[in-house]
Amino acid sequence: MNTVELIRKKRDGKLLTEDEIKQLVSGFTTGKIPNYQFSSFLMAAFLNGLDKNETAYLTKAMLNSGTIVNLNSIKGKKIDKHSTGGVGDKTSLILAPIVAAAGINVPMISGRGLGHTGGTLDKLESIPGFKINVTLSEYKNILIKCGAVLAGQTKEIAPADKLIYALRDVTGTVESIPLLTASIMSKKLAEGIDGLVLDVKTGSGAFMKKYEDSVALAESLTQTAKAFKLNAVALITDMNQPLGKNIGNWLEVKECIKILQGEDPVERLTVISITLSSAMIVLGSKALSVEEGLGISKELIDNGKAFDKFLEIVKLQGGNVELIKHPEKYPKSKIHEFVIASKSGYLQAIDNFEIGMASLELGAGRMTIEDKIDPKAGIIFKPEIGDHIKKGAVIAEIFTDKKEKVDLVKQKILTAITIGSKKPEYVELIKKIVG
Amino acid sequence: MNTVELIRKKRDGKLLTEDEIKQLVSGFTTGKIPNYQFSSFLMAAFLNGLDKNETAYLTKAMLNSGTIVNLNSIKGKKIDKHSTGGVGDKTSLILAPIVAAAGINVPMISGRGLGHTGGTLDKLESIPGFKINVTLSEYKNILIKCGAVLAGQTKEIAPADKLIYALRDVTGTVESIPLLTASIMSKKLAEGIDGLVLDVKTGSGAFMKKYEDSVALAESLTQTAKAFKLNAVALITDMNQPLGKNIGNWLEVKECIKILQGEDPVERLTVISITLSSAMIVLGSKALSVEEGLGISKELIDNGKAFDKFLEIVKLQGGNVELIKHPEKYPKSKIHEFVIASKSGYLQAIDNFEIGMASLELGAGRMTIEDKIDPKAGIIFKPEIGDHIKKGAVIAEIFTDKKEKVDLVKQKILTAITIGSKKPEYVELIKKIVG
Repeated sequence: MNTVELIRKKRDGKLLTEDEIKQLVSGFTTGKIPNYQFSSFLMAAFLNGLDKNETAYLTKAMLNSGTIVNLNSIKGKKIDKHSTGGVGDKTSLILAPIVAAAGINVPMISGRGLGHTGGTLDKLESIPGFKINVTLSEYKNILIKCGAVLAGQTKEIAPADKLIYALRDVTGTVESIPLLTASIMSKKLAEGIDGLVLDVKTGSGAFMKKYEDSVALAESLTQTAKAFKLNAVALITDMNQPLGKNIGNWLEVKECIKILQGEDPVERLTVISITLSSAMIVLGSKALSVEEGLGISKELIDNGKAFDKFLEIVKLQGGNVELIKHPEKYPKSKIHEFVIASKSGYLQAIDNFEIGMASLELGAGRMTIEDKIDPKAGIIFKPEIGDHIKKGAVIAEIFTDKKEKVDLVKQKILTAITIGSKKPEYVELIKKIVG
Repeated sequence: MNTVELIRKKRDGKLLTEDEIKQLVSGFTTGKIPNYQFSSFLMAAFLNGLDKNETAYLTKAMLNSGTIVNLNSIKGKKIDKHSTGGVGDKTSLILAPIVAAAGINVPMISGRGLGHTGGTLDKLESIPGFKINVTLSEYKNILIKCGAVLAGQTKEIAPADKLIYALRDVTGTVESIPLLTASIMSKKLAEGIDGLVLDVKTGSGAFMKKYEDSVALAESLTQTAKAFKLNAVALITDMNQPLGKNIGNWLEVKECIKILQGEDPVERLTVISITLSSAMIVLGSKALSVEEGLGISKELIDNGKAFDKFLEIVKLQGGNVELIKHPEKYPKSKIHEFVIASKSGYLQAIDNFEIGMASLELGAGRMTIEDKIDPKAGIIFKPEIGDHIKKGAVIAEIFTDKKEKVDLVKQKILTAITIGSKKPEYVELIKKIVG
């Protein structure tokens, strides 16, 4: 079949074979199929869907567009975690050292901030010197030396995904469960891992705002993992408020340091981080249950081994260890202002998307692809949903060098929160486990 | 809204405003919106549809991408006909001279053969010297001089349509009723006409094979005409067998000459042609009813005025009149062979698409855009559905210079017909009138 016939087949709601999907992906990746044909196919796939098999075929074709890293020479299980992203989501920096300290390899390839969300790579790069662009052999060496590596997608890993994602981004075909699944799983399968924990966010600050969509994505991800015989489990977790109090790259690193040092400034962040690390420890065969994994995780924080592992990772990847030990030495933003509650009442809801956008405005993320991130910039958002706020209390602190953005951001934060007289119901943090 | 937001809006099944559709069309036409975004929009429009208003907006935006010909200085009504195309469909060459001879202006912009169907322009070009590429001022002059002009789409007419059609052709987005409607109507409205008769084909040799689809297209076309205050009527006519016996460019011109000379080799072709011409004569206010129009049409054939008008058009457009008067002088194909019935029985059905494709194989149409048409090539397909055929009788004559195609085409024709013992039901020629 030629390309137009394949497009028409999907357009007419028919199922594509493995060979047909391979033809489309390799045709596009090698430049034989032009952008305008592939985007038409993507929209047909978006609207008519891809079934379980087609999703696996697409994942496979994208996976095979690059190298599958062979980590067989490295002893022990290799377990990774992937999050669909949200506001203040910084669990990778906490769980990677914990799991590595538990004796499991954590080969983690992460991404940049996307839209209103932050990205692990941007957070790591706020540590002066931290090198996220490593070659495949550096990647393996770091992993062998300390049991964890936190890096960006190398050019060898699923190049088809990079090309397809760039096209989806400009053709309105991002929010499709099968397309998201293939994008995520092609990269994760390329890491050569034995197990994967998925953190699928749901709520106003997530890409999937509706709970049912998040469950469907989690099911699609774990089903696809199963098709490749990869052990995987997905947690559906709440993203209706920032995860942790700090939003912004260095601010988030600082928050992670505190948690790894056994301080516990935000219970929700700690709970999610060590639940995810526990699931990874179970997949890595170092615990028989999540409960046991939780115990191990807590112990590794308490005895300082997790923080030591973090220092080791930072050092091996070229980052400034001195600043991790003494975060107070980090450069300060020119502006540090407070957002004040204009009335009293319970914090009933947060438009978490807007909080993410507010932090972008301050310089913590990119509005356009060319924007430079200010690692110091961001927000400390104080209350949680259900907290009682008094008029005049500090709701948030903002850090930025952009004077002109201060009023706008204050307004944005105040508009994003709903304060009322009734105490809202408790928001379940971990909503469901899939797979 | 930016382009991605507009794509997402249509993707999510929402209605676009007039300004939004204008932004998409003018953005694409001026090159600001790249192919890959517009094709994604086209697929979203294909699958989620465009409503009556959106279709009119799209038509308007495409129409306004070029010149609307002003024929106000020319006295009398200007009426055109458009057919959705089929196998052996040559009515334009018959009805244009009839209607012009009735004192109505026929400014007709036609297209080339598309897929299995022939095109009026290709048929006209089989007349040596006939010039279909005229400038707008030549177009008007010919119309003023003889009351009819048969030409190709000039670059001033709906340039957006040309660009959009080329993209639809390679992105699996052709067979969409709103997109077809905007394509057809933008060109026809640009002609500056007062009325339009639409011949919407249905059946195996048409683009719309299903009757309901043809009716839906006819309704969409007449509704859109109404939105522009253009008088229009649509006939749904049968395309389950070739229209006329001759398929192939010069063969079809020859068949038209016979009909215009009052000979009547094929009743079905004559009936459709003069029904369409009558509808045009009614729209042109030269008759009060189709019956009266039919009388006028027949009279203009009988008294030779229609044929004289045809000679006049051919002469004004540079065509060889001598060959129209003496078609027997036309060059002959190297090969003239017969297709023989292999069994006796009633002709129950014809896969008319395959007959069209067989004539393409002989050289009567283009397989690729670069192919040159052989004007002599084609098929004379003798029986009609319902005829009784005797084993050994001639079903078709084939004309070609391509020796290597003869066996293939014979086989194709024999495979395309169903001969059985039961006489099939009569196939209604004109199935419905819409508008």
